[in-house]
Amino acid sequence: MGNRPAEDTAIISETELRGIVAQILERNGCRSEVAEILAANCVGAERDGSVSHGLFRVEGYIASLRSGWVDGAAVPVLEDKAPGCLAVDAKNGFTQIALDLAREEFTARIRQNGIALLLIRNSHHLAALWPDVEPFAEEGLIALSMINSMTCSVPQGAKKPVFGTNPFALAAPAGKEGMLVFDMATTTTAHGDVQVARREGHMLPPGTGVDRDGNPTGDPAKILDGGALVPFGGHKGSLISLMVELLCAGLGGGHFSWEFDWSGHPGAATPHTGQIFIGIDPSKAGGLPFGMRAETLVEKLREAGLSHLPGRRRHDLRAARAGQVPVAAARLAHLRDLAEGRAG
Amino acid sequence: MGNRPAEDTAIISETELRGIVAQILERNGCRSEVAEILAANCVGAERDGSVSHGLFRVEGYIASLRSGWVDGAAVPVLEDKAPGCLAVDAKNGFTQIALDLAREEFTARIRQNGIALLLIRNSHHLAALWPDVEPFAEEGLIALSMINSMTCSVPQGAKKPVFGTNPFALAAPAGKEGMLVFDMATTTTAHGDVQVARREGHMLPPGTGVDRDGNPTGDPAKILDGGALVPFGGHKGSLISLMVELLCAGLGGGHFSWEFDWSGHPGAATPHTGQIFIGIDPSKAGGLPFGMRAETLVEKLREAGLSHLPGRRRHDLRAARAGQVPVAAARLAHLRDLAEGRAG
Repeated sequence: MGNRPAEDTAIISETELRGIVAQILERNGCRSEVAEILAANCVGAERDGSVSHGLFRVEGYIASLRSGWVDGAAVPVLEDKAPGCLAVDAKNGFTQIALDLAREEFTARIRQNGIALLLIRNSHHLAALWPDVEPFAEEGLIALSMINSMTCSVPQGAKKPVFGTNPFALAAPAGKEGMLVFDMATTTTAHGDVQVARREGHMLPPGTGVDRDGNPTGDPAKILDGGALVPFGGHKGSLISLMVELLCAGLGGGHFSWEFDWSGHPGAATPHTGQIFIGIDPSKAGGLPFGMRAETLVEKLREAGLSHLPGRRRHDLRAARAGQVPVAAARLAHLRDLAEGRAG
Repeated sequence: MGNRPAEDTAIISETELRGIVAQILERNGCRSEVAEILAANCVGAERDGSVSHGLFRVEGYIASLRSGWVDGAAVPVLEDKAPGCLAVDAKNGFTQIALDLAREEFTARIRQNGIALLLIRNSHHLAALWPDVEPFAEEGLIALSMINSMTCSVPQGAKKPVFGTNPFALAAPAGKEGMLVFDMATTTTAHGDVQVARREGHMLPPGTGVDRDGNPTGDPAKILDGGALVPFGGHKGSLISLMVELLCAGLGGGHFSWEFDWSGHPGAATPHTGQIFIGIDPSKAGGLPFGMRAETLVEKLREAGLSHLPGRRRHDLRAARAGQVPVAAARLAHLRDLAEGRAG
């Protein structure tokens, strides 16, 4: 994930790479606006070193689209529920498109009311959450987001998986420090990282998940083949994961992580659930400017010896790469083939 | 914490016990309304078996009040910041009084807007968070609350304590299942439980905190005497704790956990920080009734073998005790002495 490419690594501009990925997505059934939004998300993650949510996801998108599981041409519908509450029926399309539709009005509601809620249902998500929340922090707003996924995690104290990886993300402006942003699976690790570990043949820490008999394991193959992940942090992390199910599916109207059946869609990889956003306008709170207070917190953390601030490694890599993304040459060639229809 | 008293245990009605605690608080400088609210909170925790936040806290209240650190007679002031955002300056009093002042208007704003934010600053809190959020769930609303406390927790990757125990709580209506409610310190354990462990002479799990040299320990004395707690769940729990600091102090206008100096007030035990609430009206979200969806989640968790639902143990104990609270006889006698001014 460093910035110096190995010999078999190509350097390609973010713009060109986005074009290639968008072309792949269009070729597989996305309308052009959908393809562009998903490509920007996917290439942005690759650029920032979030490889488990970057180009690695392209095959998942293709398989989900081809199997008819997700509708790449879906046109989401915005619903006005209350002065501080908007909802979007994603019509079996991607949440990012639903968010894009709602963004302007949601931002206006946040600024008018001080806080607003956006509920997205009937939607699919196969990406990181930080690309969803960061743009709000760039506008001076605080954004929280949660999304439930597919059943793959055994709640603390239970015997069978119920929860998804159920990530939880926050982005907040931080004055001179840019922004504070985190995006965490509420499982021990993200599902994408388990898949990467299996592909690359390395073990995860013991207790990352359980095997098919419920025994703790760090073997990605045992976790993926009939086993499951577990929530991070024992019963407390399990409660955070429960909150994500409750708010995304219970409140937001999406499926719970176990409520969709993709068995008739071989290759389907995009959980069909719900996502919620809570947006806050800190300028409405009064008192000292929020950014100054966030700077104070960052300074204190630095003084206490914290070297990695949340989100900073990605942002540093983004700045260092300056729009140029390293990609394994063979991988890039394959992506070009997919884009041109020379590979399936 | 069982329901059958030992021989040296007295049974007293919740009402009478509230009266005794309120009298103690009034005798130490609380105006009567403040004394009644805090006594109800404290006795409610004892009744529910939350002993670390029950009568155990009485001496902390007394010491904080007598030292002049907290103002038991303070009259909080409600501020209207935006249609969805209220704030309260607690005027160096207790957050529970600020919440009581704001409750009616905050509830109205939640119902009008679908979501609302309440920011409490210049406030003290020495109690559990679930008594703050449960009343909203009883009204059919979802409530989230966070509060930062006093520096006693070393962020993951740092060398010195920065964060407080920084609890995070949620209460949500759950139809026939009553409510789902959790209240967790974002440290490995609550500070009150470390104090109880030291008093009772038992060890906590290894890694609950660090000693004064930064070595992991489960010895409550080493954690309390120059050592510190750590966040639950490694870097992910540490990020949740960071969020609590950022939102309570950065957004809400309270002190960060390290920003108050109580050294001139010997015995002061009440952190002088900030607390925030996010309230959501699930009836505004549309779709299936939220309570029904919460029931579905509870059923699924039960099927998966989860025996303890969040908050259920407390609620079962509350029902079983039916307003009668067991208290060690010697402890009750001492509380009566404090109330009557026969003990100091």
